[in-house]
Amino acid sequence: MQIKPFITLVGAGPGDPELITMKGIRAVREADVILYDALVNEEILTYAKPACTKIYVGKRAERISTSQDYINKLLVDYALTHGHVVRLKGGDPFVFGRGGEELDYVRQFGIPTAVVPGISSSIGLTGLQQLPLTYRGISESFWVITGATADGRLSDDLKQAVQTNATVVVLMGYAKLAQIVDLYKSYGKGELPIALIQNGSLPTERIALARVDTILDEAEKNLIGVPAVIVLGEVVAKHQDFEKVKKSIQAIMV
Amino acid sequence: MQIKPFITLVGAGPGDPELITMKGIRAVREADVILYDALVNEEILTYAKPACTKIYVGKRAERISTSQDYINKLLVDYALTHGHVVRLKGGDPFVFGRGGEELDYVRQFGIPTAVVPGISSSIGLTGLQQLPLTYRGISESFWVITGATADGRLSDDLKQAVQTNATVVVLMGYAKLAQIVDLYKSYGKGELPIALIQNGSLPTERIALARVDTILDEAEKNLIGVPAVIVLGEVVAKHQDFEKVKKSIQAIMV
Repeated sequence: MQIKPFITLVGAGPGDPELITMKGIRAVREADVILYDALVNEEILTYAKPACTKIYVGKRAERISTSQDYINKLLVDYALTHGHVVRLKGGDPFVFGRGGEELDYVRQFGIPTAVVPGISSSIGLTGLQQLPLTYRGISESFWVITGATADGRLSDDLKQAVQTNATVVVLMGYAKLAQIVDLYKSYGKGELPIALIQNGSLPTERIALARVDTILDEAEKNLIGVPAVIVLGEVVAKHQDFEKVKKSIQAIMV
Repeated sequence: MQIKPFITLVGAGPGDPELITMKGIRAVREADVILYDALVNEEILTYAKPACTKIYVGKRAERISTSQDYINKLLVDYALTHGHVVRLKGGDPFVFGRGGEELDYVRQFGIPTAVVPGISSSIGLTGLQQLPLTYRGISESFWVITGATADGRLSDDLKQAVQTNATVVVLMGYAKLAQIVDLYKSYGKGELPIALIQNGSLPTERIALARVDTILDEAEKNLIGVPAVIVLGEVVAKHQDFEKVKKSIQAIMV
């Protein structure tokens, strides 16, 4: 049988295995090989056919080198030798997922590609928390920014975002939370509502709601670590539990 | 049998019926009533149980009034009389979907709510076109802005966005394309790559790729109308067909 190389980038969604699309599941069912990331829920792999080869390429694995170059090479090797490779990535493949780099690499070999979008944490985890990113009269836009730039600095985009009315969502930025708080305070935005959502969509999900001035204390009380999504903007006050936060702050002030 | 009122906002995705999540389909299967919008693919409704009441509340319907107030009231009435109401919305319920307003209204009646996020056109339609919203070294963020503000003006956020390096996605903005082009030109960004994606994810999908300076001509050649997503940013040049655009422009200049 002739091998027909093909590579599909599939977004697995933010964690809950039911938050993958029907099209994503179809790709998983049809795959000859699946290369999957650390943030992908392994329950999704149970949809694969028995003969499918499943390979973990999560960057958190410490034993083997799973650099981007190595993943790129695996994609091509498996497509040429096995046929349909599904590259299963947490969230959406193009929201800080390096999907673009993978496509650029594999196209050099003339391998046809497809993409199945996924629920990005930026939209999905706020949604599950019933926290609207946009709201008429409050926010006409949302701006999604990486907290993990290639060289480790705080993104310049965040320095511009603080000066706008956009709802700001920072992904992979929990390690820089104190820096982000300082930035917002330096622009007089200490009163702005802020939310942290950790392990979103999973049974271990936690949320911290506060204002910029008090979020570091709140984070210490409620959260345990990464990964966490940061949301900054007046829409955060629309969260059902935000009133409780306000009351507890008022109680302290009385 | 006692009625248990419950309302779930479900994102149906950008058009292709396979781009709803597994969790979204489960909600549709369990629904006693479904209220659905114009942009929802009706194939999704075939998953509903036979006894489910399906009501079209698309704002494009001209015969009956389907104002937001009316939809809010329907949600509550059906939840109280029928039980589980699924509010099925195109894309994601909180990306300019007025989901937040619906939740605010129904919560006044003490009705419990849930949200199932959907693939937003902003991320999903660019993804299907293999157009990466973010790319290391090119874009560290993307900014999603409505083209249809409550009072019809161009969003102030767009006037700030033009001054940043963020990839900008404008939803519901096709009618203001000429204004957006003028705005970008006034900031010396006539050379910036831009894409228009129309009827994204459907068999009738069309795309126009150009630079800001030439997009109006390109749109006239390739597109027929709304709905269309507008993407502005250097990442647009990563689209597989962008090189062809560049060549055709050079050919004209020779």
